[in-house]
Amino acid sequence: MKRFPEISAAFSRYFNAKHFPREPSGLYGAASYMLEVGGKRIRPALCLMGNELFTDIHPDAWKIAAGIELFHNFTLIHDDIMDHAPLRRGKPTVHARFNESSALLAGDVMILKAYEYFIGTDPGRVEMLVRLLNTTGYQVCEGQQLDMDFEKSTVVTLGDYLRMIELKTAVLLAASLQMGSIIAGAGTGDQQHLYEFGKNLGLAFQVQDDWLDAFGDPATFGKQTGGDIMQNKKTFLLMQALESANAIQRKDMLQLLEEPGPDKVQKMLLLFKTCGADLAAEAAQQRYLDQALVHLEAVQVASERKEPLRELALGLLKRDY
Amino acid sequence: MKRFPEISAAFSRYFNAKHFPREPSGLYGAASYMLEVGGKRIRPALCLMGNELFTDIHPDAWKIAAGIELFHNFTLIHDDIMDHAPLRRGKPTVHARFNESSALLAGDVMILKAYEYFIGTDPGRVEMLVRLLNTTGYQVCEGQQLDMDFEKSTVVTLGDYLRMIELKTAVLLAASLQMGSIIAGAGTGDQQHLYEFGKNLGLAFQVQDDWLDAFGDPATFGKQTGGDIMQNKKTFLLMQALESANAIQRKDMLQLLEEPGPDKVQKMLLLFKTCGADLAAEAAQQRYLDQALVHLEAVQVASERKEPLRELALGLLKRDY
Repeated sequence: MKRFPEISAAFSRYFNAKHFPREPSGLYGAASYMLEVGGKRIRPALCLMGNELFTDIHPDAWKIAAGIELFHNFTLIHDDIMDHAPLRRGKPTVHARFNESSALLAGDVMILKAYEYFIGTDPGRVEMLVRLLNTTGYQVCEGQQLDMDFEKSTVVTLGDYLRMIELKTAVLLAASLQMGSIIAGAGTGDQQHLYEFGKNLGLAFQVQDDWLDAFGDPATFGKQTGGDIMQNKKTFLLMQALESANAIQRKDMLQLLEEPGPDKVQKMLLLFKTCGADLAAEAAQQRYLDQALVHLEAVQVASERKEPLRELALGLLKRDY
Repeated sequence: MKRFPEISAAFSRYFNAKHFPREPSGLYGAASYMLEVGGKRIRPALCLMGNELFTDIHPDAWKIAAGIELFHNFTLIHDDIMDHAPLRRGKPTVHARFNESSALLAGDVMILKAYEYFIGTDPGRVEMLVRLLNTTGYQVCEGQQLDMDFEKSTVVTLGDYLRMIELKTAVLLAASLQMGSIIAGAGTGDQQHLYEFGKNLGLAFQVQDDWLDAFGDPATFGKQTGGDIMQNKKTFLLMQALESANAIQRKDMLQLLEEPGPDKVQKMLLLFKTCGADLAAEAAQQRYLDQALVHLEAVQVASERKEPLRELALGLLKRDY
């Protein structure tokens, strides 16, 4: 039973292979660059931990973990193009470092490579795993489309927002765990509990991320706060505040969104607090975390086997701030 | 044994299904729009014909044909984004009709849908088919990258150009035929002959397309000629002409590429002819066609079963001009 740091490091060693040929360098250089930028490798680690929850890690779990990480990186590359993001993990994004066309194609070949890892697994399970990848992939794309739609929409609700982050972020974490459990031969009940554990963990994590962007300590958060507010991004805090605001507070918020002044961030933070959105976010995060742990508890294996996943969940949601 | 028009029509009926849900409409509306624009459905027809060459059409051949057509449409959507193409098959391209982000995502979900069709086929063959799709997919992406690289390069040779069109266009035609034969249980020798038939057919077709864009009759070609010359596109004619030109002709061509005048097309056409590039293109097209037919002849089934493929090959390469 390995803890997250150990399993993440082991995956990084496994994954630190040459995934693509050298030429044409405009294409494969861009794809390799993205993989070299690295990341926390949470999704593949969840797949491996979801597998080891039941049994010694199966060789297929490594392949599926690699496929998941490649798939995740494809979504990041294409999302960054759509969002015109200059940086990812503190480094230039693929389209910024190369160009949009190479980044687009690099994302495409990363999808193919993901399926290549999947297709190399046990024939008795491969269809189920690929179908779960497909279902999840559609959802992630739908989440990205909704995220873009929301940028232009003025009638987004908190419920819409939660559905969007479920699709865009939570379902791939959920599916990673479920895939690990499928490879271990877990029953559908346990598979579903792990899926729900991952989904709720993802939701808790995203709500926390929204909170940190507004109220976090830049020193420990790792980036300047207030970015979401500056960009008028739909976040849990904004959606929650708009829903619980009275008429005057609502008018003030809408005015800040349309006519930003030099003290926009400070004013908006004050409104979030006045409307109780900060406390609501902390409560929602705790609720999702509790829900995640209920599902983890329900998985029918000895409690001590769950310790690494429990520790990961609590650790992810207890950064210093 | 069905001829191409019949099998293409049958495929269109099979394929005329609802491939995607309705919402979010920005994503799935874009994907469905592309499929409704239609096309000649040559690749899926080749898969079905490659299957029927050996046996009654297997149900899996329809699924693989659908997967191939979806995969092909993904490449068209993403290529059109990269090429900033306003029109495809006489209608607005997906990114022009919707927007680049929706088009990018629509291409992505089309890849997923392609694999969904593949994964639903006989478990005994699915890995081989998916691996062939992957290999071919990488090649198509490499071809697109080379095509973009060539736009900026001044040192492209005829050999580079032929390799690029092989990757970008010919291999998917080749793989479509091979996949049909795999589903029929054909031996590897016959599979390879069909692959080579398709590859050479694709090369012949592309060389013809280059010729038609320069020397074709706009009335039968369906679009204005001279477009490639106006855009300084690397074509068989230009590459061939540059290679066989004497020093003066070469200087004239390079000057036309850099300083276009009002009679650029006429002057370039004359240079192509003076250098014998027009005849070389016709000869190359014939050579590729002959080579394709040699491979078709070598397939170990009764000659009359090959008639629809032979007819298709001769028909594709004998448009009126």
